[in-house]
Amino acid sequence: MPRHVVISIDAMGGDHAPAIVVEGVELLAKAFDDGSLEVLLHGKASTIEPLLAKYPVAGRISKVRHTDTHVSMTDKPSQAIRKARGSSMWNAIEAVKSGEAHACVSAGNTGALMVLSKVLLHMAPNAHRPVIAASWPTIRGASVVLDVGANVECAPSQLVEFAIMGEAFYTALHGKNLPSVGLLNVGTEDLKGNGIVREADMLIRQADLDMNYQGFIEGDGISLGAADVVVTDGFTGNVALKTAEGTAKLAAEFLRQSMKRSPLTMLGALLSRSAFAELRSRMDPRKFNGGVFLGLGGVVVKSHGGTDGYGFSNALRVALNMARSNYAQSIAVNLEKLAKSIETTNQLKRAKQESTNA
Amino acid sequence: MPRHVVISIDAMGGDHAPAIVVEGVELLAKAFDDGSLEVLLHGKASTIEPLLAKYPVAGRISKVRHTDTHVSMTDKPSQAIRKARGSSMWNAIEAVKSGEAHACVSAGNTGALMVLSKVLLHMAPNAHRPVIAASWPTIRGASVVLDVGANVECAPSQLVEFAIMGEAFYTALHGKNLPSVGLLNVGTEDLKGNGIVREADMLIRQADLDMNYQGFIEGDGISLGAADVVVTDGFTGNVALKTAEGTAKLAAEFLRQSMKRSPLTMLGALLSRSAFAELRSRMDPRKFNGGVFLGLGGVVVKSHGGTDGYGFSNALRVALNMARSNYAQSIAVNLEKLAKSIETTNQLKRAKQESTNA
Repeated sequence: MPRHVVISIDAMGGDHAPAIVVEGVELLAKAFDDGSLEVLLHGKASTIEPLLAKYPVAGRISKVRHTDTHVSMTDKPSQAIRKARGSSMWNAIEAVKSGEAHACVSAGNTGALMVLSKVLLHMAPNAHRPVIAASWPTIRGASVVLDVGANVECAPSQLVEFAIMGEAFYTALHGKNLPSVGLLNVGTEDLKGNGIVREADMLIRQADLDMNYQGFIEGDGISLGAADVVVTDGFTGNVALKTAEGTAKLAAEFLRQSMKRSPLTMLGALLSRSAFAELRSRMDPRKFNGGVFLGLGGVVVKSHGGTDGYGFSNALRVALNMARSNYAQSIAVNLEKLAKSIETTNQLKRAKQESTNA
Repeated sequence: MPRHVVISIDAMGGDHAPAIVVEGVELLAKAFDDGSLEVLLHGKASTIEPLLAKYPVAGRISKVRHTDTHVSMTDKPSQAIRKARGSSMWNAIEAVKSGEAHACVSAGNTGALMVLSKVLLHMAPNAHRPVIAASWPTIRGASVVLDVGANVECAPSQLVEFAIMGEAFYTALHGKNLPSVGLLNVGTEDLKGNGIVREADMLIRQADLDMNYQGFIEGDGISLGAADVVVTDGFTGNVALKTAEGTAKLAAEFLRQSMKRSPLTMLGALLSRSAFAELRSRMDPRKFNGGVFLGLGGVVVKSHGGTDGYGFSNALRVALNMARSNYAQSIAVNLEKLAKSIETTNQLKRAKQESTNA
């Protein structure tokens, strides 16, 4: 039997909570109805319990943990943190901290979830900042891109930490060992890019990591699958992710308009309905729902706030894969190597400095 | 009659030069065959002249300026500059400097073209760094995005210069006065983003520019047409542009695969051929060929190196539109306002500093 996993859910987070949350639990639970999955639903019992009555499998594997309060979608992180104690989000994370659950999922306020996760779970050893990793459809399947928004400015060593965490995340999701890792840049030659990516590239090569590092990749390489794991700062990653979303919408809109241009093309569209359905499904953002906060002392998955039950079930699946993986051990080895490599470099610099001063 | 324009072309630049160059001249010349357009073709006369014999309109409006040397596509800018004097690229730019031509177009080595343009034409008054602007298809038509690769690190005041130059470029291309201008960021709220975009946003608001400034836009806003002019640094802009190209390729490939899934969808695809042709045409990168180097003391347009005659004719059209516009005067006013605003801010800072020290 697979490893027994408990997922702790902020049942009140998101635009359509708790209905889509319970529906999402039902969808996942049906696929893993072997007794190995258990769910804690944090939130208002009087709202959640009637929903569980409607979904028999979810009802069987879920325990409701009542609380009257929840963090609002519009609260700023600073406000959220003041009134968060005892909220559904706080309690969902707390269950991971106490060891009762293996992973936490919330479709609530991103900023608040990030701050509370950091406060409650702290950072993993040798990790310095949490990072948000997202799945991205590619011609070869799916890639992982990180950071997509947590850190708008990154030091080179942080980018290397992201590479280490992204690699382990990819393995947890897709079961592939030593996935290829690329650093996003404006060209693939050594001399291209700004000082930060060039230094990060050098650091990765120096640190002798257990990693299939491919060097620089360019923006078009993401969708073309040039690397399994694409590493960048949170500013560039967020812009790239949203630019791709906008371009996909543009292509879909142009296609829709073109198919309407004549009775013949409209007939063609009718005959091709199953092809368009397949296309929509392959590009479906709900399939790629579930941004993971990496670098923390526990697994926290952020679902898109506006998703539906199917989308939420995919965020739960990401949490389940993470919980069943050896993610924490995988990153520990490489993060320690990185820390040592940086320490050695700094010692050499200091020694050189001292001999210059002497 | 429209303003008489002379375009100076590096006929030897690009992967398929000079054949596609002359073909491109023919395509443009046919559309502007009223005596108002003249072309200088810099390069090897013995190669260019037989081509001109094949294209009657191009032959009529073109003058060949012979030179034996040209800058290679693989030369580094530093190598190129040493041996560039007298090359087709050098001479093409030189004709703009001397006032003989109104704009220069090259499909050659980007780095070399940038360096030579800067050396020969210098910067426009109050402009500090050249920037590459590109056209981008959107749901509402087309936007201009800049910088797409010239400056991988940008100070806030540079982003404001880009906004000023992008605005005037948009007007030159599309004839629309006061196009909307947005600053690319990871969120639309004031507090989002890194220090550079936040300070650039403040600078634009303070400088009292003649500009329809919309504030921050996000990555998906580019393709959705959230602003006519999208301003960002050359690292983010290059990644965004290439990410969009990759996503468009991904969508096209998924569509192609889906249409092949059954005999019925293949029949549907056959009936919809005209729709797919229209779609391809709307997304055709050749239509958006012609990245302009803004901020220089003259117009230089960079065509994609691998383009064909149709693509090159679109780069020529961009040069023609720029040459016929009031671009230089438009940016002069706003750049001066910006320089004054920055000077005032600096004076206030110094005064405050002195009173603190006193």
